[in-house]
Formats: sequence, C-alpha cells, structure tokens
Amino acid sequence: MDDNGFSFNIAVVGLGLIGGSYAKALRELKPKKLYGIDLNESSLLKAKKMGIIDEGFTDGSVILKEADLVIIALYPEDTVKFIKDNVCNFKDGAVITDTCGVKQMIVEEALSFLPETVEFVGAHPMAGKESQGFDTASKDLFKNSNYIITPHKENSEKSINLIEKMAKAIGCKSVVRVDIEEHDNIISYTSQLPHVIAVALMDSDICKDAIDLFIGGSFRDATRVAAINEKLWTQLFSLNSDRLVYEIEKFQEALNKIKRAIKSQDKSDLEDIFKDAAQRKRMML
Amino acid sequence: MDDNGFSFNIAVVGLGLIGGSYAKALRELKPKKLYGIDLNESSLLKAKKMGIIDEGFTDGSVILKEADLVIIALYPEDTVKFIKDNVCNFKDGAVITDTCGVKQMIVEEALSFLPETVEFVGAHPMAGKESQGFDTASKDLFKNSNYIITPHKENSEKSINLIEKMAKAIGCKSVVRVDIEEHDNIISYTSQLPHVIAVALMDSDICKDAIDLFIGGSFRDATRVAAINEKLWTQLFSLNSDRLVYEIEKFQEALNKIKRAIKSQDKSDLEDIFKDAAQRKRMML
Repeated sequence: MDDNGFSFNIAVVGLGLIGGSYAKALRELKPKKLYGIDLNESSLLKAKKMGIIDEGFTDGSVILKEADLVIIALYPEDTVKFIKDNVCNFKDGAVITDTCGVKQMIVEEALSFLPETVEFVGAHPMAGKESQGFDTASKDLFKNSNYIITPHKENSEKSINLIEKMAKAIGCKSVVRVDIEEHDNIISYTSQLPHVIAVALMDSDICKDAIDLFIGGSFRDATRVAAINEKLWTQLFSLNSDRLVYEIEKFQEALNKIKRAIKSQDKSDLEDIFKDAAQRKRMML
Repeated sequence: MDDNGFSFNIAVVGLGLIGGSYAKALRELKPKKLYGIDLNESSLLKAKKMGIIDEGFTDGSVILKEADLVIIALYPEDTVKFIKDNVCNFKDGAVITDTCGVKQMIVEEALSFLPETVEFVGAHPMAGKESQGFDTASKDLFKNSNYIITPHKENSEKSINLIEKMAKAIGCKSVVRVDIEEHDNIISYTSQLPHVIAVALMDSDICKDAIDLFIGGSFRDATRVAAINEKLWTQLFSLNSDRLVYEIEKFQEALNKIKRAIKSQDKSDLEDIFKDAAQRKRMML
C-alpha cells in the first residue's frame, strides 16, 4: 500500500446495486487492481467492458488470494455463506468488510469461521435506492450518506482506519463507529419498524375505485417502502428478530394508547399525545 | 349571477391557510364582492390591503345577508358552531360549503340547524401543507389537487354544480362526488390512520446521540406528518372515531400477522406477506 492510499488489490463480491456502486466509486480511486466476483457472468462482462473492473470471477477460489481488501456486497445469508465457503481462499493479512443492514449475527458468524490471519470489519453503508442490479449502480450512490462501522474487540485500529478512509474516499459524509448491539437496536426502530408498518398498511381491502382520489402525502409517504425486496428484508428481519419484535411491541403499545384516547373521546389526552409527537418530530428535523 | 360565472358575492370564513388560499384564488375569478370573516383583525386588514378581499368582518352578523356563496374554512367544531350561530344571518338562496376532512357529522349538524332557504353542500378539498395562517396561504394551493363533494339527498344539482365549477376554477384537477359514508370510511384509512401511525412512531425513547445517523428515508417518510396540528386532528379523529378505531384495529391485525411470522422465523410466510404488499403498492403507484 503506497502513499496514494489505495494502490492495492480490491475485490468486490456481488455486483448488484450496492456492490456495483462500490466498484464504480472505487475505480476512481485507482486501486492497483479491482476485481469483481459475481455468479452473474453478464454483469462481470459488462463491468469489465466498461473498465470498472480489471477482471471478473464467478467464485473466489483463484482471485481472493490476490485481494488485500474484500468488500462483500451480498444479502446477509449469502455474505455468511461466502465467508464460510472461502475461509481458505483469503490472503493472509487481508481486510474483509461487508454491507449488511444487521450486524451482530454477521460479525459473530464471520469471526467464528475466519482464521486469525485475516481481519473482518463489519460495516453498514446507509445508502441505497429502490432498484436492483449492476445497471442501476452509481459511483455517486454513497455521496453525502452515512457509513457506520461496527468494530469488535479483535479489530485493529489500522484495519478500521482503512475502511474509514475508503468510506470517505467514495463520498460518505459521516463515517462513525458504533457498538454492534447499539447498531442493531437502533436500526430495528429507525429502519426495520417503518418497513413493517409500510407492509402492514398495504394489507387492506379498501381498494375501491375512488381510493386514488383520497391518497394524500401521508399515505404515500408511509407506504413508499412497501414495494419491498422480499428476500433481502426477510433475511434482515430474521437476523434481528428479537430486537424487531421488541420494537413492534413498543409501537403497538403506543398505538393502543392513541386508540384508547380516540375510543374514549378523551380530547385533552389526544391533544397531549399529539403535542408530544410534534415536539419530538420538530427536534428531529 | 351573470355569464362570467362568478359575478356574485362570496364570503370566505376563516382566513387561515385554507381560507386564505380560497380568497387569493377566488379573487382571480373577479367575483362581484369578496368578503372575509375572521376573528383575527390583522389578517382581515392584511387581506384588504393586498386587495384580496373587498371588506373584512369579525363576525357574520352584517355581511352574510349579502353573500350568495359562503365558504367556511374553519376547524370542524368551529364550522358547526359558525353555522349554528349564524342560522338567521344567511341570505335566502345562499349556498354554503365547508372544507372539513370528515363529512358525516358536519353535514348532519349543518342540516339540523339550517333553514330550507339556504343550501349546504359538504366538500373536502384535498389540499394543504404543513404551515398555518394567512401569510402561508397561496392562490395555487388547489392546483392539481382533488376536490371531493359529498352531496346529501336534499342538495340540488344547481348548487352542486356551482361548487364543482368553483373547484375547477381555482385549479383542482379532479372534482368528484362521493357518498358521505364512503368518504369518511376511506379517509379514515388513507389519511387518518397514517397520521395515527406517524404519531405512534414518535413515541419512543430511542433518542440517543447517534440516532440521526440511522434515520433513512423510511423513517423520515413515515413520520413526516408527526409534527401534527393537535387541535385540528383531535377534532377530525373525534368526529370519525368509530371508523378510525376500526381501521386501527385492522392495521393492528396486519401488524400482528407480520410479528408472528418474524417471531416464528417463518421465512416463507414473511416472503409471501412482502410479495403481496409489494404487488399492491406497485398497482397503486
């Protein structure tokens, strides 16, 4: 690794929206070599033809031995499987990172498989959009987004710094270190719960002809993420199920409190609940 | 009423965001006279100075006798109170309309007070923004929005047509007639329930330092309307409480179904729920 900071070999695993965006953004940093690993050969060919990757591979057996930094941009279960399947393929001294939206299970599984000669740094880039595949990937996907690194006790400062430096170099605004459990707690509230709600809101048979005329901003906003990627979110929810169930139940209590006030026509109680919510929302803006 | 269609006297009651926007938009239609009625004298003065209204009044006792069309843009309870207090002041043959987000109670109350010499046409302009007061009112507020008229069996075609024509003239895209009960049923799902959810979502003590970093689009969207106007929404919820409680309970069942699937780690069940939601959402887009 010389002075420009990125003249080493990088492998990106999975060239979908997220991995493809990493590859496109990392290409700008002029790494020594940039490799793509994906089961989809046409994505590999396209990426090579565009000059995004130097070479593409359908598995890690050959090329991981050359990779100093490995970015795994797969769904959670596939991330764990890729690590497990390639335990003997990683280069000594390599740093491996991931992009999963839940961290405790991923980090625990990764550490349980990996030898001491390679280091795993868990990370969650808070970037995305509602599309899939290499074609929708963009080198600007990470611009101004937050990048959360969840160090564990065996991580070295040097490896964490490497991921931090990379996250900043691809455009992230804030790169922060957060405790693994705290990450999974907060994410269950700020991301998983709103997705559960959006899905639950669509489960209604009020779909009469005139309904479009009645849909204002509040409904459209609350259901924006209801066109959910079912495989990804099933995995994310399952891997964080205890925390998510806890947050759903807290939300259910809050909902019951409002329902009781509406049912009992307790106007001063309702006004107090609304004032509290409005105040919290304004503080968050 | 001559050929240009609006050369008669109009009174707008309440010069807040909605009423102020009516006044500004109606001024463009060159009515014979445009009057404003508001308790707030400074709004009246401002509107008169800007040439929006011809004259302002702090109550309806004098001027309602001159008004052929009265648009009441007050909160629901104040709308009913205004009608009740001015039963003897309306001009014979006048058409009175309102702007409330719930209709059954408003229409029933209005009809119970009003003499046969005036006609009440219930309406719900689906326009608004998260601000209050005359200063934030705009003649363009209704542009491209939906305007719902909820006729009752005593309405004449002529009066309904008048409100339709006015709604189109101030810029509404769709002006439709909907059964009163259907309006209140659908609105409890498409507008009131998302507001309840946004408020319930804010009722959490996860407000640690790092939370801003974890807030993505899904949370921001689902809570956009949480900075709620507590007096208005308390009235809207209270006046439609049975229907809203019914919708909350249907939503609670949907939420429980998802929670059970997460708890039991039933992945195929979760994927099915997500596929259904995604399909409904895509059909709605």
